[in-house]
Amino acid sequence: MKNLVYIQSGGPTSVINSSLYGAIKEAKKHPDLIGHIYGSTHGIEGLIDDNLIDLGLEDDEQIELLLQTPGSILGTTRKKLPKDIHSAEYAKIIENIKKHNIGYVLINGGNDSMDTCNKIAKLVKELAIEDVKVIGVPKTIDNDLACTDHSLGFPSAAKFVMNAVNAFSVDAGCFKKGKVHVVEIMGRDAGWLTASVDLLPEATRPHLIYLPEMTFDLEHFLADVKKVYDEKGYALVAISEGIKFERDMTNVRVDGFGHAQLGGAASELCRIIENRLDLPTRAVEFSIVQRAFPGYVSLTDRKEAIMTGKKAVQAALKGKTGKMIVFKRVSQNPYKIKYQLAPLSKVANAVSHVTQEMMVDNTRMSDKFREYLRPLVDGEVKLTYKNGIAPVTVLKRIKVK
Amino acid sequence: MKNLVYIQSGGPTSVINSSLYGAIKEAKKHPDLIGHIYGSTHGIEGLIDDNLIDLGLEDDEQIELLLQTPGSILGTTRKKLPKDIHSAEYAKIIENIKKHNIGYVLINGGNDSMDTCNKIAKLVKELAIEDVKVIGVPKTIDNDLACTDHSLGFPSAAKFVMNAVNAFSVDAGCFKKGKVHVVEIMGRDAGWLTASVDLLPEATRPHLIYLPEMTFDLEHFLADVKKVYDEKGYALVAISEGIKFERDMTNVRVDGFGHAQLGGAASELCRIIENRLDLPTRAVEFSIVQRAFPGYVSLTDRKEAIMTGKKAVQAALKGKTGKMIVFKRVSQNPYKIKYQLAPLSKVANAVSHVTQEMMVDNTRMSDKFREYLRPLVDGEVKLTYKNGIAPVTVLKRIKVK
Repeated sequence: MKNLVYIQSGGPTSVINSSLYGAIKEAKKHPDLIGHIYGSTHGIEGLIDDNLIDLGLEDDEQIELLLQTPGSILGTTRKKLPKDIHSAEYAKIIENIKKHNIGYVLINGGNDSMDTCNKIAKLVKELAIEDVKVIGVPKTIDNDLACTDHSLGFPSAAKFVMNAVNAFSVDAGCFKKGKVHVVEIMGRDAGWLTASVDLLPEATRPHLIYLPEMTFDLEHFLADVKKVYDEKGYALVAISEGIKFERDMTNVRVDGFGHAQLGGAASELCRIIENRLDLPTRAVEFSIVQRAFPGYVSLTDRKEAIMTGKKAVQAALKGKTGKMIVFKRVSQNPYKIKYQLAPLSKVANAVSHVTQEMMVDNTRMSDKFREYLRPLVDGEVKLTYKNGIAPVTVLKRIKVK
Repeated sequence: MKNLVYIQSGGPTSVINSSLYGAIKEAKKHPDLIGHIYGSTHGIEGLIDDNLIDLGLEDDEQIELLLQTPGSILGTTRKKLPKDIHSAEYAKIIENIKKHNIGYVLINGGNDSMDTCNKIAKLVKELAIEDVKVIGVPKTIDNDLACTDHSLGFPSAAKFVMNAVNAFSVDAGCFKKGKVHVVEIMGRDAGWLTASVDLLPEATRPHLIYLPEMTFDLEHFLADVKKVYDEKGYALVAISEGIKFERDMTNVRVDGFGHAQLGGAASELCRIIENRLDLPTRAVEFSIVQRAFPGYVSLTDRKEAIMTGKKAVQAALKGKTGKMIVFKRVSQNPYKIKYQLAPLSKVANAVSHVTQEMMVDNTRMSDKFREYLRPLVDGEVKLTYKNGIAPVTVLKRIKVK
């Protein structure tokens, strides 16, 4: 009988621990096949440094709270493994896999983490350690993983962004002469999350929307902002953090080494608007909150996150390896997906962008996009509260010797 | 029979429209005493410029949605009326009160707005317009209104801040080597809102808490941040926007006029931490979201907001004027308040601060504070959703001729 190790990797999401929850629940159903359920602390680092904790020793109550706990409860990492799978760190991974009699390696992450996952799967195959199965669990609020209809965590982040901008919008528009509000939303390469604001009703939808997939022309941008402001007395602009524009280098702060200190995209654009249009501005970044907000988790997202954790265990038990769980949308109305497997080698080197046919212009997305997103953000979760606060999991973290 | 005009003033809150809802509901119960229910657009400006809308012509469905609509649905203002109540703007106010046969003026606002409210009450009295009653409805997320146990909107903002920091905290702590996260929370003069994070359990409570009521020593601050970081591998610091510290003026951006461009307190402190301690940082501002977030409205706050709107109408109908509704806590366990009236003249010129006996040090508040806050943030509201979004009120805004 083999043990299972679960790894959380990369930036967390609001439902990352729901997948862990699903995996634990499923693994416990197979006491004849799976011995211990281990968690690797700080992603792959735990498997390199022999830092595993025994999840079987945690209280049931804390396992249940995983469903409303954002952040990576096991700890995460942004570490990239070396390209050469024969280098020292891989040897340590194999050593610890053997030491702890591990037969199932589940890695929950985004693009970079699937690359790690792929490398380990390759190495295990090359070394002919037949009884070690490696499965990827998709996760990224950026929604840019390839081979899948969508990625876990994105729907909940989108639900937060939509509802936060919806509320924000009423407040932003309630002064006679307001400001130009530039809201910066996560997404370096893909604009899925920013595009989600398009689902808002006209009264609260941002006037202008900019994704990394669109050409961003600063002069057009300034002209559009001015036009909206002149007409409405305020403006609400949603931008992806990854939009590309030529920075205005006048008045840029320079540090002791002579390096220009650039701000985030929103604050830079606000500075340019103030300099060029002489309008009052407010830059807003939702920061980590957008990926770590139990209050607006999408029910669809949570259910799928749990199910994906389960499916990953099932796939490993069936002897599958070197694969990631992916979603195929088989019906739009009613919304229905099928869980399938895609080769990690195919996932690891691709990025999924918002397509041209999903965008209309810098004020609207297309019906195609709206149809795509609507079922994903559907349904609300009910949190448990104690003294007005939604409690999160606290683990005992008992180290495996 | 006289008409009623309702005014929203100053910075909005998550429950400001719940008080309007309560006032409309109560006013409609007295068709024999109250004719039309008007809303003044953009605070007192609507009464100066004759911009009133008829709230009696709005759809019931939209009135119900007021309960989950943040922002000032009528529009608001930060306009301060001149000191001299014999100046032109007051004359216009009186003119429009007469023109629209107004007998009840309800002003929902914070300290500055209660000053406006007080001036109008004084003027009406001086002019001996006996049949015009002026009543204040308290509201400020800063919780710094005097004469009252607390102010409407503060409990919901506290509930958001607590839950957002709770979630944020798990995410912030999940990397092996993390950052110094400085979270800036609203509150220029009073630290009530920042102090609310003290209610979090130890696992997620910020390591350091700074209110405007505390002496802030930059060197001590840096030493404390370093100590926490060395011990934990990351740090979470909560600060009020109004804390006072000597800005580090090296590397400060200077605009075209030679004026130093200072950032918010959090980003300034992060810059100092990077310069002095050479640690990675992340500045976070919850910005408008903390005062405009229907998802974490406190049930206690919403109930009291509705009831206060009702009580204001009742007080005006009873002939009271020049007063604000205040809350007196008559029982702690179970929590119970009495609605009373306080003279506007007393409210208008005072500020309520966090007291010395509510603070322990820069890591903890006292039991007294926790007992005070706990019942205020209690209870959750259930929102209605459509396509994953909690809809907000959209008014027809039919202007009164």
